[in-house]
Amino acid sequence: QSAATSTVQIYGLIDVGVETLNQVGTNGDHLTRMPGNTASVPSRLGLRGSEDLGQGLKAGFTLESGLAMDTGGLNQGSRLFGRQAFVSLSGAWGQFNLGRQHTMTFFSLLDADVIGPSAHGLASLDSYLPNARADNALGYRGKWDGFSVGATYSLGRDTATAGNPGATNCAGESASNHRACRAWSVLLKYDAADWGVAAAQDTLRGGPGAFANLGSSALSDTRTHLNGWVRLSGIKLGAGVLHRHNGGSTATPRSDIFYVGLSAPLSPALLLETQLAQLRYKDSANKATQGVVRLSHSLSKRTAVYASLARLDNSGSLAVSVSNGAAGGTPAAGRAQTGTMFGVRHSF
Amino acid sequence: QSAATSTVQIYGLIDVGVETLNQVGTNGDHLTRMPGNTASVPSRLGLRGSEDLGQGLKAGFTLESGLAMDTGGLNQGSRLFGRQAFVSLSGAWGQFNLGRQHTMTFFSLLDADVIGPSAHGLASLDSYLPNARADNALGYRGKWDGFSVGATYSLGRDTATAGNPGATNCAGESASNHRACRAWSVLLKYDAADWGVAAAQDTLRGGPGAFANLGSSALSDTRTHLNGWVRLSGIKLGAGVLHRHNGGSTATPRSDIFYVGLSAPLSPALLLETQLAQLRYKDSANKATQGVVRLSHSLSKRTAVYASLARLDNSGSLAVSVSNGAAGGTPAAGRAQTGTMFGVRHSF
Amino acid sequence: QSAATSTVQIYGLIDVGVETLNQVGTNGDHLTRMPGNTASVPSRLGLRGSEDLGQGLKAGFTLESGLAMDTGGLNQGSRLFGRQAFVSLSGAWGQFNLGRQHTMTFFSLLDADVIGPSAHGLASLDSYLPNARADNALGYRGKWDGFSVGATYSLGRDTATAGNPGATNCAGESASNHRACRAWSVLLKYDAADWGVAAAQDTLRGGPGAFANLGSSALSDTRTHLNGWVRLSGIKLGAGVLHRHNGGSTATPRSDIFYVGLSAPLSPALLLETQLAQLRYKDSANKATQGVVRLSHSLSKRTAVYASLARLDNSGSLAVSVSNGAAGGTPAAGRAQTGTMFGVRHSF
Repeated sequence: QSAATSTVQIYGLIDVGVETLNQVGTNGDHLTRMPGNTASVPSRLGLRGSEDLGQGLKAGFTLESGLAMDTGGLNQGSRLFGRQAFVSLSGAWGQFNLGRQHTMTFFSLLDADVIGPSAHGLASLDSYLPNARADNALGYRGKWDGFSVGATYSLGRDTATAGNPGATNCAGESASNHRACRAWSVLLKYDAADWGVAAAQDTLRGGPGAFANLGSSALSDTRTHLNGWVRLSGIKLGAGVLHRHNGGSTATPRSDIFYVGLSAPLSPALLLETQLAQLRYKDSANKATQGVVRLSHSLSKRTAVYASLARLDNSGSLAVSVSNGAAGGTPAAGRAQTGTMFGVRHSF
Repeated sequence: QSAATSTVQIYGLIDVGVETLNQVGTNGDHLTRMPGNTASVPSRLGLRGSEDLGQGLKAGFTLESGLAMDTGGLNQGSRLFGRQAFVSLSGAWGQFNLGRQHTMTFFSLLDADVIGPSAHGLASLDSYLPNARADNALGYRGKWDGFSVGATYSLGRDTATAGNPGATNCAGESASNHRACRAWSVLLKYDAADWGVAAAQDTLRGGPGAFANLGSSALSDTRTHLNGWVRLSGIKLGAGVLHRHNGGSTATPRSDIFYVGLSAPLSPALLLETQLAQLRYKDSANKATQGVVRLSHSLSKRTAVYASLARLDNSGSLAVSVSNGAAGGTPAAGRAQTGTMFGVRHSF
Repeated sequence: QSAATSTVQIYGLIDVGVETLNQVGTNGDHLTRMPGNTASVPSRLGLRGSEDLGQGLKAGFTLESGLAMDTGGLNQGSRLFGRQAFVSLSGAWGQFNLGRQHTMTFFSLLDADVIGPSAHGLASLDSYLPNARADNALGYRGKWDGFSVGATYSLGRDTATAGNPGATNCAGESASNHRACRAWSVLLKYDAADWGVAAAQDTLRGGPGAFANLGSSALSDTRTHLNGWVRLSGIKLGAGVLHRHNGGSTATPRSDIFYVGLSAPLSPALLLETQLAQLRYKDSANKATQGVVRLSHSLSKRTAVYASLARLDNSGSLAVSVSNGAAGGTPAAGRAQTGTMFGVRHSF
């Protein structure tokens, strides 16, 4: 309990902006709002520290809050440290974490998904992607010569009950049912200087009370993710496919998201990013196709202003909003929607 | 996400004390309690940082919690950063904020209201005054040669649902109703070395579910504030009038608060402050008159002990408590009430 | 509100692990989980600061969160600073605190209870012990030549409504009932270099809505605690008796906990701790006997890994879990239970 302030690092990223959406609801209304998640990077505030234990061994911790800057509240089901909360031991053999932490889906997306956890990104097609975290989890990650491996195992994947999709009400750790609300994920990744590939699998098991029709431990929801990236003349290209087998859906359990994106510096301060993604369901006419273009102007290494323009076309009975920045933007089934966002991002 | 601790400043003010109230409830009971807000300054803990972007431009952020030190909880509807949560860009042209922030009513009160956001202050007559903040807001403030201007515009003024008056359940940002829960405020202020004047207007629009009988977007609640202050031989005098047109009240929509106060240093360490305020409703016998005297003894620049004595007289059917430090102190209608508070204030 | 970061100290302790329990529920199931409280020390994050006011006087504050590292949430009824939140003035005469703070039961346990606030410790027999805190409290502690005295008085002991036992829903500070939810505690303690003794009394008064069958202010729950410790050849022995008169129980209001423990360094890095405790009820066959052995391996002064093994035997109709790390581990009445826990502890 004795401490020197110097051993703790405070870090964060504050990102706030205004977005517009057309075609909201059955009347096709126009909506202007300040969403909790922006078309850039989710706001967060964190503390971390590490201690050299000698012989290459380190101890450390991370405590990271997800901030809803529109209201001053917390994301991830109002948990104080809803993004990350773990203690770790690390060495040449890798890093072992105990606590709430990212699953391997998070790490698999880092390089190939050039738009990232944007309100106009892949999360519009699959709300789990920016919420790929597990409570009650043991995690491991290691990296040698560009080759990364990792895994998480959760004894009860999510205790939070409000603020879906960040909270899924699957507490698990049940004495009478050892499968309920367990979750696991694995990662294989290779990154060279100018290219890389990744493969990940992430399984969520259902349990009593779990949201998203996963109320039984006999059900599970599995995502398999394959992707790659390459940098050519300073331009980065990323592409991937994310296959899902969702036991919570009887009508359309199998779906795929295909995405391809590009990140091109127009000048030292100006970055253009664009991505095209499609969500398809097996044996169904349901389909959503999303395109996004983002222009970011860096005012410094830590501060940028950005504009993002995105469009999403729904086919069949799908009613996916182009923006996952907040609830309430859903269009009518089968309708297309266009969104814009202007914002400021500042990290520290 | 890379950070050095040095760029972030942790600041705060911890203020705790014990208050007494007589004439509580219909039986005129006596109450002794430790309120969440004190007769001095509301407790808070904050983080802020700024970055010089060159050419006179700066980026920055503020994250500020309102602390209920009696219980270790949070004020402002249990939001983590309920007092302030915004990112900003500033230059010679002023400062632009995005996020949850103070409205201009807050800034208009800073100089002329000598008692400030005390449990024995103007907030007893109008609970909005220490809660003049807006979610989902764009704000601007500029100052040149003593002349200040400012404005805020909120796309949805308050998403918090519990802990009224800090939370008002008016989320807004509705696609089908573009007026619902919008809010705006403006400020004009001039401050010379020994005197100053301020004018502000602050409008809250209603919306579905909003508290305080503002459940329709056709209703609005507007405050117009005029005040001034002057310093004579080291003694500061402040006075103002706050006119309100409250669409949430059909019986008495129009009211005025008049206040006049005085702040006099008795010695370098001893400060005497006193204020007289009256709330009057148009075409009604309802009236509340409040007087307060506070003596603060500074133990250092950062630490003080204080005693506050206040009395409030209710006329007509009004039942206003002299103390806004916590709920539960309301007297019987038309009854007068006396309150005392002793506390310790420490800032860092 | 002006501040330098240097005056605030950030400190904390992150402790996470995995425990197993057998004989859970009527079917005697096996449970593996990551509990919110571990078999070592509860996780916390705090800020504190102090200011020298001259003439031996100091001002200061403590704000301390209880972290549920399994989920990233907060303990103590989801309060931000549920462990401690107070401002203080201190001098040669002792320290005076205002706010939420530990009662004297906490300080009385510090030396003689060698296992401390572990999931396998005395808290399994009495859930108040690691939750001995009071809202709305005035507190004093002083120490001279090894002799310590202290007291707390709460005007309303607990406002939190969810997350029992850390929250007890006894807000108090009632105008119409001056006894409701009051609480007080006193401490006398003497510590020499190699031995010490302590005596404490701690009374919780009931009130409308209070949990644990204390829904009337006529009821109270009092604990009287006597203990001592001695260090012989580097081995520390501690023992105590905690008598309880619980007005919330009509069947068995009177009970005693006896405990004796031992803390022995096996090497500079290896610490063995063991404790035996028994809970007995007057005029009842109900009895719980708990034994625990913990082995801690220090990787540094700030970091350790540990293993804890505990067993609890229930007699009569008692159904006490050996682990108080989380709810949900209760065995069938009269059944014995064994628990293990492996964890990592890191402080900063």
